Amino acid sequence: MTSMSAHIQHGSSQILSENLENTIALLERTPGVLNTLLRDLPDAWTQRNEGEKTWSAYDVVGHLIHGELTDWMPRAKMILQHGESRPFEPFDRFAQERNSKGKSLAQLLDEFARLRAESLTELRALNLQEQDLEQRGKHPALGPVTLSQLLATWAAHDLTHLHQLSRIMAHQYREAVGPWNAFLGVMQCNGHSS
Amino acid sequence: MTSMSAHIQHGSSQILSENLENTIALLERTPGVLNTLLRDLPDAWTQRNEGEKTWSAYDVVGHLIHGELTDWMPRAKMILQHGESRPFEPFDRFAQERNSKGKSLAQLLDEFARLRAESLTELRALNLQEQDLEQRGKHPALGPVTLSQLLATWAAHDLTHLHQLSRIMAHQYREAVGPWNAFLGVMQCNGHSS
Repeated sequence: MTSMSAHIQHGSSQILSENLENTIALLERTPGVLNTLLRDLPDAWTQRNEGEKTWSAYDVVGHLIHGELTDWMPRAKMILQHGESRPFEPFDRFAQERNSKGKSLAQLLDEFARLRAESLTELRALNLQEQDLEQRGKHPALGPVTLSQLLATWAAHDLTHLHQLSRIMAHQYREAVGPWNAFLGVMQCNGHSS
Repeated sequence: MTSMSAHIQHGSSQILSENLENTIALLERTPGVLNTLLRDLPDAWTQRNEGEKTWSAYDVVGHLIHGELTDWMPRAKMILQHGESRPFEPFDRFAQERNSKGKSLAQLLDEFARLRAESLTELRALNLQEQDLEQRGKHPALGPVTLSQLLATWAAHDLTHLHQLSRIMAHQYREAVGPWNAFLGVMQCNGHSS
């Protein structure tokens, strides 16, 4: 794919395509990580949250599914097609409350794996070059962002939810660990990634 | 295994054996989770840390190996054999700097998987009953702790390092995500679990 707007090659170009390879390497692992961690794990770990209006592991998987459907590749294509002329659709952080209804965690894990694989097939088919990665789009709240930043954020978003998942799960053992609570970093996490 | 000291059955007994099942379910998944996340992942994710005197993903796997060798099952057996009469050996949080030398990440992942499987075989063979889980040992800093608390901490310790891992990895993308930095919870994590 060629650039749709003028751009200037600069020193960070090499970094951008290296980042893309690293990004894809992480993105393709996440469904397997969640599957290995969560499938058939007792509900005590996967269905409980951190208190009112917080998410369970089950909710997090639903949220990741919604990201595949409406956020990452749709926004990437919008940058390539419309640049900064059209802002992204705002992302619905609560869509999983509707979309996950009636589905088992195993079904959600399968759905996430399928959608992520489709997203990555589509991403690879774009064959993005340095100049594409430097293209800009318009985030409704953050303003101008590059395609490279969007794709890096996709990977970091996986990590933010792995971070959150481990914290939600550890929360279920807050009492069980007794005095060790003080030594376990995850128990001190203040929920910045909820 | 029968209790080696007098104890009183109380309302939390059922909870202790449920916790043990949940604990084992988590413990047996962790090597697979780390393997799926880290094996063959680019060094940019696995060999970089968060700055001077912090750990990389590679260091974390070495630390988990050392826990299998010297912390969890050795302490569990010490509680069952010696109760509160002998404090645990303090845990060396930096042993992996020596022990991981010259090993690849793939070797460490294999070693961790093997040791964890051995630990769990040993744990299951103890066939722990409620009264065993209520037995106490002596932590060198925390004082009296129960076997149940030790085993719960083993699982929560896995989660604390999954929490840390996701934060270490996200740190590598702090610049790459550009303005999205502000929206990613993991980027705000202050390192309480390092």
